[in-house]
Amino acid sequence: MERAIELAKNGWGRTNPNPLVGAVIVKDDRVIAEGFHEAIGCDHAEVSAFKNAVEDVAGSTLYVNLEPCSHYGRTPPCAKAIVEKKIKKVVIAMIDPNPKVSGKGVQMLKDAGIEVEVGILEDEARKLNEIFINYVTKKRPFVILKTAMTLDGKIASSTGDSKWITSEESRAYVHILRDRVSAIMVGINTVIKDNPMLTTRLEQKVGSDPVRIIVDSKGIIPMDSKVLCNDSKAGVILATTSRIHEEKEKQLIDNGVTVIKAEGENGCVDLKKLMQELYKLEIDSVLLEGGGTLNAAAFESGIVDKAMFFIAPKILGGKDAITPVEGKGIQSMSEALKLKNVSFSKFGEDILVEGYL
Amino acid sequence: MERAIELAKNGWGRTNPNPLVGAVIVKDDRVIAEGFHEAIGCDHAEVSAFKNAVEDVAGSTLYVNLEPCSHYGRTPPCAKAIVEKKIKKVVIAMIDPNPKVSGKGVQMLKDAGIEVEVGILEDEARKLNEIFINYVTKKRPFVILKTAMTLDGKIASSTGDSKWITSEESRAYVHILRDRVSAIMVGINTVIKDNPMLTTRLEQKVGSDPVRIIVDSKGIIPMDSKVLCNDSKAGVILATTSRIHEEKEKQLIDNGVTVIKAEGENGCVDLKKLMQELYKLEIDSVLLEGGGTLNAAAFESGIVDKAMFFIAPKILGGKDAITPVEGKGIQSMSEALKLKNVSFSKFGEDILVEGYL
Repeated sequence: MERAIELAKNGWGRTNPNPLVGAVIVKDDRVIAEGFHEAIGCDHAEVSAFKNAVEDVAGSTLYVNLEPCSHYGRTPPCAKAIVEKKIKKVVIAMIDPNPKVSGKGVQMLKDAGIEVEVGILEDEARKLNEIFINYVTKKRPFVILKTAMTLDGKIASSTGDSKWITSEESRAYVHILRDRVSAIMVGINTVIKDNPMLTTRLEQKVGSDPVRIIVDSKGIIPMDSKVLCNDSKAGVILATTSRIHEEKEKQLIDNGVTVIKAEGENGCVDLKKLMQELYKLEIDSVLLEGGGTLNAAAFESGIVDKAMFFIAPKILGGKDAITPVEGKGIQSMSEALKLKNVSFSKFGEDILVEGYL
Repeated sequence: MERAIELAKNGWGRTNPNPLVGAVIVKDDRVIAEGFHEAIGCDHAEVSAFKNAVEDVAGSTLYVNLEPCSHYGRTPPCAKAIVEKKIKKVVIAMIDPNPKVSGKGVQMLKDAGIEVEVGILEDEARKLNEIFINYVTKKRPFVILKTAMTLDGKIASSTGDSKWITSEESRAYVHILRDRVSAIMVGINTVIKDNPMLTTRLEQKVGSDPVRIIVDSKGIIPMDSKVLCNDSKAGVILATTSRIHEEKEKQLIDNGVTVIKAEGENGCVDLKKLMQELYKLEIDSVLLEGGGTLNAAAFESGIVDKAMFFIAPKILGGKDAITPVEGKGIQSMSEALKLKNVSFSKFGEDILVEGYL
């Protein structure tokens, strides 16, 4: 099962909004086939393994990290294929989280007399597919809020200087994250101040650029912003309100930008509504790389599922320096949002603290 | 040597400004004596071990984490006692850092024909005595800046609420730190807002209260503050300037408070000068538990030797919330103060990040 999960990771950033799935087929204590779901529209892991098998798979045991599907989607049901291939036993890490199909794949296998075991390395499997699980159960994108700050909680000095807070290792990892998610989201202030491309730059392989989402309530994005002008094939979404000028909206649409209006209070973008629109576009995950204001709005609106704080062991100071979460803030310490399943790891000299909301 | 270092820790918070020292005597592969420096004025570790020996120590090997002293201080020189006891070999973790006596103990032993080995577990021994090493080489107290913040870098909400940021485990550890240092320092704002006792409360044993230092440039401390009224035997130092009212100064002195005037720019306490005065009082270590303003002044003045940031996995938010280091701050991110030898550990749900300036 460990191997199946490892294989599944080959699909990172390519299968969205499908899950990451790997499969291993064992016969007489020998691995006779491996496979994984490579990208959306491609073979499912089980079918991929069948194609890669070096001998007849009849009578063998199949290890797969997600319940085989039972319905006709982009590809035919895997459970059916497993029955046809005369697999003897199927070991599954976790049941499909989609309530509509959950358990049906297992039932189809059992009905055909196949021995089924469920729950092996389930925690690891759930972590691997946290985006997919969130997407199908909550019906909105999995939002990962990522920030980089000094040890004393500053993301920029009072003059706005923020280059660079964290180590090369941390920054390289952020590009790996960008490669894995469907979309990246920033606020208009970041576009104006830093003029980023918001693309994926990986050292080892060609990255997959996420859809770039700009939250820009007034629609003031400069048309010569790098995010609008670079040659990435990934689309750009401008999340705005009716405050955008009609002419500007037309100009953006003519440039291939998708304009989404999500009216909120005080003329600001309603992030919850925006997430519903993104779900409709099959965007299963958003990496939020906002500044203090957008981050605060994201926490307030309850759209954040996971927080990733890269902390550089540096002291900047400054009453007027920028902190990772600004806005109005919570008044009472006892009501602060508590992260769950917190873990931490080192990236060069930095520390990454991760947790779930 | 590991055992000697463990024994040395028995003196934590009791030997200041002396070092922590443990000694183990081994004869024919058997430990025949152990000892440690228990408190200022008590036997040194070597002498303590000699007294505890279960048989004649002549011909044995002595393990000690600091070079035996060669001079008459509060007690007679240990090197002399070692020679008299006819010890065959002495294994030392580190040479005495005091430039005046450094190496003289080893020389005295060698002159008497004793075999000497130096440098075993030296890193651990240096870490153990970081306060002592700093005190004798820099001739000022070792200042440990301790703060507790949310993951988004807030030590209090915009309304000043800060109870409680961190877990019980973190707060219990702070009392262990208080037990180990000579003094604790806070600003007048903390005294007025939180009215703390600044004493050591330990679960397992009776703690040793540190000298309580209040930085109060204008001398406005209320006479009924808990720090002035509780029954701790540890003294209180009010660090102030000539801005203090004569009558208030007299009143404080009559109450047993030591008043130190350290004139700085803009009528504020000069923290560097203050440290020089504390050194004269044989205060070897200060735990700074300040707010954002005092912390900023401490970093700016260069008195901080070690920073300890307890980070609770919570999000508070707030542009006007209080951050651990405020003041004017550094303008350029590339000039941020970098911590060295950074390490991190878990305390309950919190993370402690430690580093050196």
